[in-house]
Amino acid sequence: MCTALTLKTKDGYNLFGRNMDLSYSFNQAVTLVPRNYEYRDRVTSNMKKTKYAIIGMASVIDDYPAFADAMNEKGLGCAGLNFPGYSYLEDKEVPGKNNLAPYDLIIWILSNFETVDDVLKEIGNIELVAVPINEKTPLPTLHWIVADANGKSIVIEKTKESLKIHENPIGVMTNSPTFDWHLTNLNEYMKTTPIQPEPVKWGEKELRPLGVGLGTNGLPGGCSGVDRFVRIAYLKSTLSETEDLNTGISQFFHMLNNVAMPRGAVKADDLDDITLYTSCMCQQKGIYYYSTYNNNGISAVDMNKEDLDAKEIKRFEYLDKLHITYQN
Amino acid sequence: MCTALTLKTKDGYNLFGRNMDLSYSFNQAVTLVPRNYEYRDRVTSNMKKTKYAIIGMASVIDDYPAFADAMNEKGLGCAGLNFPGYSYLEDKEVPGKNNLAPYDLIIWILSNFETVDDVLKEIGNIELVAVPINEKTPLPTLHWIVADANGKSIVIEKTKESLKIHENPIGVMTNSPTFDWHLTNLNEYMKTTPIQPEPVKWGEKELRPLGVGLGTNGLPGGCSGVDRFVRIAYLKSTLSETEDLNTGISQFFHMLNNVAMPRGAVKADDLDDITLYTSCMCQQKGIYYYSTYNNNGISAVDMNKEDLDAKEIKRFEYLDKLHITYQN
Amino acid sequence: MCTALTLKTKDGYNLFGRNMDLSYSFNQAVTLVPRNYEYRDRVTSNMKKTKYAIIGMASVIDDYPAFADAMNEKGLGCAGLNFPGYSYLEDKEVPGKNNLAPYDLIIWILSNFETVDDVLKEIGNIELVAVPINEKTPLPTLHWIVADANGKSIVIEKTKESLKIHENPIGVMTNSPTFDWHLTNLNEYMKTTPIQPEPVKWGEKELRPLGVGLGTNGLPGGCSGVDRFVRIAYLKSTLSETEDLNTGISQFFHMLNNVAMPRGAVKADDLDDITLYTSCMCQQKGIYYYSTYNNNGISAVDMNKEDLDAKEIKRFEYLDKLHITYQN
Amino acid sequence: MCTALTLKTKDGYNLFGRNMDLSYSFNQAVTLVPRNYEYRDRVTSNMKKTKYAIIGMASVIDDYPAFADAMNEKGLGCAGLNFPGYSYLEDKEVPGKNNLAPYDLIIWILSNFETVDDVLKEIGNIELVAVPINEKTPLPTLHWIVADANGKSIVIEKTKESLKIHENPIGVMTNSPTFDWHLTNLNEYMKTTPIQPEPVKWGEKELRPLGVGLGTNGLPGGCSGVDRFVRIAYLKSTLSETEDLNTGISQFFHMLNNVAMPRGAVKADDLDDITLYTSCMCQQKGIYYYSTYNNNGISAVDMNKEDLDAKEIKRFEYLDKLHITYQN
Repeated sequence: MCTALTLKTKDGYNLFGRNMDLSYSFNQAVTLVPRNYEYRDRVTSNMKKTKYAIIGMASVIDDYPAFADAMNEKGLGCAGLNFPGYSYLEDKEVPGKNNLAPYDLIIWILSNFETVDDVLKEIGNIELVAVPINEKTPLPTLHWIVADANGKSIVIEKTKESLKIHENPIGVMTNSPTFDWHLTNLNEYMKTTPIQPEPVKWGEKELRPLGVGLGTNGLPGGCSGVDRFVRIAYLKSTLSETEDLNTGISQFFHMLNNVAMPRGAVKADDLDDITLYTSCMCQQKGIYYYSTYNNNGISAVDMNKEDLDAKEIKRFEYLDKLHITYQN
Repeated sequence: MCTALTLKTKDGYNLFGRNMDLSYSFNQAVTLVPRNYEYRDRVTSNMKKTKYAIIGMASVIDDYPAFADAMNEKGLGCAGLNFPGYSYLEDKEVPGKNNLAPYDLIIWILSNFETVDDVLKEIGNIELVAVPINEKTPLPTLHWIVADANGKSIVIEKTKESLKIHENPIGVMTNSPTFDWHLTNLNEYMKTTPIQPEPVKWGEKELRPLGVGLGTNGLPGGCSGVDRFVRIAYLKSTLSETEDLNTGISQFFHMLNNVAMPRGAVKADDLDDITLYTSCMCQQKGIYYYSTYNNNGISAVDMNKEDLDAKEIKRFEYLDKLHITYQN
Repeated sequence: MCTALTLKTKDGYNLFGRNMDLSYSFNQAVTLVPRNYEYRDRVTSNMKKTKYAIIGMASVIDDYPAFADAMNEKGLGCAGLNFPGYSYLEDKEVPGKNNLAPYDLIIWILSNFETVDDVLKEIGNIELVAVPINEKTPLPTLHWIVADANGKSIVIEKTKESLKIHENPIGVMTNSPTFDWHLTNLNEYMKTTPIQPEPVKWGEKELRPLGVGLGTNGLPGGCSGVDRFVRIAYLKSTLSETEDLNTGISQFFHMLNNVAMPRGAVKADDLDDITLYTSCMCQQKGIYYYSTYNNNGISAVDMNKEDLDAKEIKRFEYLDKLHITYQN
Repeated sequence: MCTALTLKTKDGYNLFGRNMDLSYSFNQAVTLVPRNYEYRDRVTSNMKKTKYAIIGMASVIDDYPAFADAMNEKGLGCAGLNFPGYSYLEDKEVPGKNNLAPYDLIIWILSNFETVDDVLKEIGNIELVAVPINEKTPLPTLHWIVADANGKSIVIEKTKESLKIHENPIGVMTNSPTFDWHLTNLNEYMKTTPIQPEPVKWGEKELRPLGVGLGTNGLPGGCSGVDRFVRIAYLKSTLSETEDLNTGISQFFHMLNNVAMPRGAVKADDLDDITLYTSCMCQQKGIYYYSTYNNNGISAVDMNKEDLDAKEIKRFEYLDKLHITYQN
């Protein structure tokens, strides 16, 4: 499962990224798709061209970049998060709609739009259809968060009932159930606070904090999507902005660490569900920062140091070996 | 507040370290104290000599190395964690006892002993006395975890009632209340499991996990010492050993990240209580690994690359600037 | 706030009732409305006639019986529970609909139908409109549970989005948020069980229950509607049927006691929110059982001992004085 | 398991009682032991005489009244509650001590003392020894609460470490672990309040209570002794006094209902653990009030209507059949 986050810095940067919680690798690496890259739309079999260059974490299947999370050169970002038990796809194309396969949604959004408002104008015309990438690859069960360089974000959820676009007033997201359920659930934790409560008396017994942090008691500590949503929303609420870019990047990883999956905590079908990687994109600078489970340090790829008009997809080595700075 | 952890690797290494959660810096840096280093015992004013070399995180006050956590060349480690509301010191020296000031305990243990069993033979003779380092420095309110290279650990707690030595059956520790209270409290969370529960029916409604991780629901998610103890004990219980040293180091930081304090989550007297640094010592190799709040990457100092018979204390730069590995 | 419950007995009875949690009295008493009683519909100003006799807890305002919960002679029951922040009423009559005022819903349902299936055939044609009983009485913010003598129950919720009819697979209900939110929330508590868990080891520490009941740890214990829904659903799930009628009545009150509001626990606008009364209707026998906050004992009124073709509403004394059976 | 409670009324009465949570009956009934009643002390085999008359819930085994909870004519009350895993008894008599069998403790205290202060003077001289009532009856694993007519109460706990007398600053008690553990645990719930919290903003999302009672969110809702202690202590803390005796009695049962065991919630060795009975003693009036699982109404026996100088124990029928007040 996964957790997505957005964060501003006081010097004008927007950060967007996520934890990818999974029990297996999907051949992921930082991947740059240049402008005017042609890919075959799986539903219509037509070739489509990307208008904007895109950088993100992806596997490449038959020349097709399947992004898990990415941003384009205009700073628009999008991530797909697991949505099991709720995700629904139409069996066949709906006439009059822009029919998309689910893995096509990220590339379609990022190759065409600059802001969330741009997306909102067109998103009503799409439909999501059950067409797989190829015969070996099962259909994903996803919902998506889209966040732009102005700090605005939305959530796209296709369930059996409808395709819903939710404004995202907190800029975080996890997994099932639906986004509006999570938002309602936050009300239950409204007493959470960074401030120590004052001592009170219960009968003749004075109650006082045994140490700092008592204001946060009551937060749920499990690894499920419901618990992670509450925690990341709380952390976001107490720190909506950081001083500057470096402070922001560091803070972004600290916040996602709080909702990450340490190996051993959770099993999915007998495999350890771990935070495979954590990403953090600077939407103004076009830099993709990431750490991996085996490499706690942060690596980065700057899209603006590359030729955005290249012909081919470029893949960057997935740095998953522990990096240590030895001081002697 | 703080969290301490021990962890084994299958290839024979023992790791010991901690989160230092604090709202201010204490001029800390990795510090190496050589063999036969002389320091003035604050209670008796006598000079004492270290038998073993020691590496750890310390501030140095008037040539005196005040360690927060450290290990010696034999792999014995010790860390002091805050114990507010419970810590108690004798007003004056107790005749017939080895009277120690609280900040002297770590250096006394690490400069004299090789294993926890060695410590146990002598610890009954000590007493802790309220003598400060100097007039400007308030007395700390601490309890201590001692862990050796065999994986054995104990907790030392001096309260108004008594000086107690607890065997540590899990190898973790946080803050107040007393260690035995925390151990009892774990029973309340015995249902926590990495395994997904099977669906059940409540009336005609089938209940099923909304995603992975439901077995961990019920874990407390606050930042207080009680909540952190439960979480780190759970994580330790599901993964008592890791494959090899590098995997172990990475895992150690992941586990402590789960109980770390992201900026904003908790205030202590109007200041953010954050995880100032995280340490991880390889007790066989004598290497001190650490990350800091501003530098998520791991830095390291190897004591065996230094002259352990040097005359002076050696301090290593505290690497607190964000390190990023740029791939282009 | 309130909690509603349904329960079967093995000898063929169905029980339906509720806790009425309120910080003030509303002149309530057990009230019998005979067949063919005429009342003025507030929306249309037309006179309407009851087909079936109805017994329940009501205040009578201008000859109009405002029921909080009731059943008719066919065993169909209905209760209104507070639904603040979600309840929505149309500003004016919707053409082509059977427009009802919210307090009219219970009497309309119970005076016309025998079973939930009967209700379902007609409920699609109604609309709820914002017309008060009189100028002094504010509009209620309610949702409703309807339960028949076959044990089938539904929930009726009118929000800004729509009028929704939910099948009720557990036969319980509380307050806000919407019923489907509560059902989803139950998944989070699927580990709750009456069975003691087996001891487990965390490290060298064996965890075992400190006493019976550990399987229920993790249940939320607050007085809010969310917490009460989880608890009453759990209790219902472990005991869907009782031996016989008397056992069932006793059990019904025990279950609702678990989610009742003891004085002092909760304030609403400076007043104590208490469980004003608890009702339990035997849907086969037409007997209305109830206890009150000041009288823990159970009182009862049997509708079949009255003339159901009487001309007037009959009110029964509200027995709110502590009844004690002295044995000497 | 069990829960004990004390409560004052503003017109000068003290109430003391308990829930008896058990999966079987123990032939209990309200039992009056007169003054100067002789019983054989099981440890010494000497005959002892009661100084004060005692009323309480007891089984009678071989003419010996084994009280679960009781008070004497001076208003001193005592109850034994299960203390599994902690209760410890000496193997044999300790010389120089007043050696008592565990079931003898209640009758010894109530037949000799008037107040808690009286008990405190003598309790230091006792020792608890492992002598059963007879060969068929296993030794109980108990700790005790003693409460007098002045509202003072203590807890007596014999563990392997020591016999401890705890002042009881809240006047409540449940089961394992030790009383001081529970008191420390209360600090974790110090944010609980009857007052609704004010709305707060998390990002752009305003959080507000979905209904009354949100101040109590975070209370633990399980049936274990730890959860029950927190809930009953909270309820006691918000309502330390009631208006008058009748209000107090009603309130006393409401408070204990909140921590009672409804059938089905908890299994102990395949049997339902239920609240067999709830008792409430008026310590000034000498009246023993009780309800049973099958009879939700309150029954009462007044010791002052009996001959306290009688020769024999008097037993009163255990009213366990549902009492209903029919109004027609």
